[in-house]
Amino acid sequence: MSAAAASRPIGVFDSGVGGLTVVRALMERLPLEDIVYFGDTARVPYGVKSVATIEHFTAQITEFLLQRDVKMLIIACNTMAAVAAEVVHRLAAGIPVLDVIEAGARAAVAASPGRRIGVIGTPTTINSNAYARRMHELDPTVRVYSQACPLFVPLVEEGWLEHEVTRLTAQEYLRPVLAEEVDSLVLGCTHYPLLKPLLRDVAGLHVRLIDSALTTAEFAAERLQQAGLARTGGVADYRFVVSDVPLRFQTIGERFLGRSLGTVEKVDW
Amino acid sequence: MSAAAASRPIGVFDSGVGGLTVVRALMERLPLEDIVYFGDTARVPYGVKSVATIEHFTAQITEFLLQRDVKMLIIACNTMAAVAAEVVHRLAAGIPVLDVIEAGARAAVAASPGRRIGVIGTPTTINSNAYARRMHELDPTVRVYSQACPLFVPLVEEGWLEHEVTRLTAQEYLRPVLAEEVDSLVLGCTHYPLLKPLLRDVAGLHVRLIDSALTTAEFAAERLQQAGLARTGGVADYRFVVSDVPLRFQTIGERFLGRSLGTVEKVDW
Repeated sequence: MSAAAASRPIGVFDSGVGGLTVVRALMERLPLEDIVYFGDTARVPYGVKSVATIEHFTAQITEFLLQRDVKMLIIACNTMAAVAAEVVHRLAAGIPVLDVIEAGARAAVAASPGRRIGVIGTPTTINSNAYARRMHELDPTVRVYSQACPLFVPLVEEGWLEHEVTRLTAQEYLRPVLAEEVDSLVLGCTHYPLLKPLLRDVAGLHVRLIDSALTTAEFAAERLQQAGLARTGGVADYRFVVSDVPLRFQTIGERFLGRSLGTVEKVDW
Repeated sequence: MSAAAASRPIGVFDSGVGGLTVVRALMERLPLEDIVYFGDTARVPYGVKSVATIEHFTAQITEFLLQRDVKMLIIACNTMAAVAAEVVHRLAAGIPVLDVIEAGARAAVAASPGRRIGVIGTPTTINSNAYARRMHELDPTVRVYSQACPLFVPLVEEGWLEHEVTRLTAQEYLRPVLAEEVDSLVLGCTHYPLLKPLLRDVAGLHVRLIDSALTTAEFAAERLQQAGLARTGGVADYRFVVSDVPLRFQTIGERFLGRSLGTVEKVDW
């Protein structure tokens, strides 16, 4: 593979700002790589929409990033990965496509000696059963216990990361999963890494938390190496594109990214 | 005004299902009137989007309802009423346009002998300052204390109407407003009427809750009479149109409407 091919950016996308936790992990794991991020902030959240609508939006975003000449596509949104990954693979025409569910499922199966895995996510992600299906393909002996946590995204966006309300909500959501004595818990939504300290408290130290942002970055590094597409020099360039620049976007985005966003580009759809 | 003009439906719209609380109040106050409801469920919520995006979506919905030959337009969404009412008035071309903010502001000013009014709503509604501005036009002596409550909508949609988490959240949000010793509290979001029992508890019986669904229905009845557009007979017909039929739509919609939704029509945008 040529250096020119390797110098193209990685395309990362999400329904909103959550995927910035994946970008943050990619920046740390692959500091030489250019990244183009797309967040569909005009139509967020996807987690409560129908499959047909999510597929339609996903196709639009994929085509947008392909026009930016990306060398790899990362679906940094559990909802899109759960119900519309096929759409991306079909459109990508040979470019590697990774997603947070694939990465999280692999990491969870590898990290669960007791074969009992918990998964938390948005209602659409959980109802799609995508994590359980993928984990069973990887290891038919695992037992998967899933729980939808619809309030976690708004709690994270409110910034109540260590708040008593968030703790009570987490205790209520996690109770049935923890009762199954899982040995790992997949944070099946890109917002959830920000709740890690609180979730670690509620789940207890014996439960391993699988952060899909970190596992996706690790998986991307492997795939770039395999494909001979890893960049070996230069200074990384980051572009952030959104479909709306809502109130508090900079504040919330920077909380996810862990650093300044710089200039944000807006598309009109 | 002719009976034919009066026989046309009332158009009611919202960014999602919240406006169904207004439809419910209209059904009770004006049982002879036909209603066409539009909920933009593919793009909900609006409360976190930019003004330009909200104006664009609002124009699209208004044009859709005008094609349905409505005799009155009711903006049953505080966010659209706060930042995009002008768009609706411009497009409506003579048809009466009502909105939840106008109705709520009037009712609050009339119901607050102490002239101290609290307003709660989504971040966009509160930041628009639309309630305070309207109330000051109606009575320059009122003092208005506003508070954004971004978690109330997801809590209502989760169905945690009397949950401890909701109570704690309400106590935290309302503390600064109640400290101002308001004599009324405007529920400035169409989701909030479902939290009325809990909010009454938290606010105390001396604070009058202004439910914008009820006040809007009352205001609509007045305006129809004035305009000679009230229907005097026949059996009311109800149409529900949405841009997406998401997961749990029937359940959540029926919680807001207080009865079965029947057939729901979906538009493709």
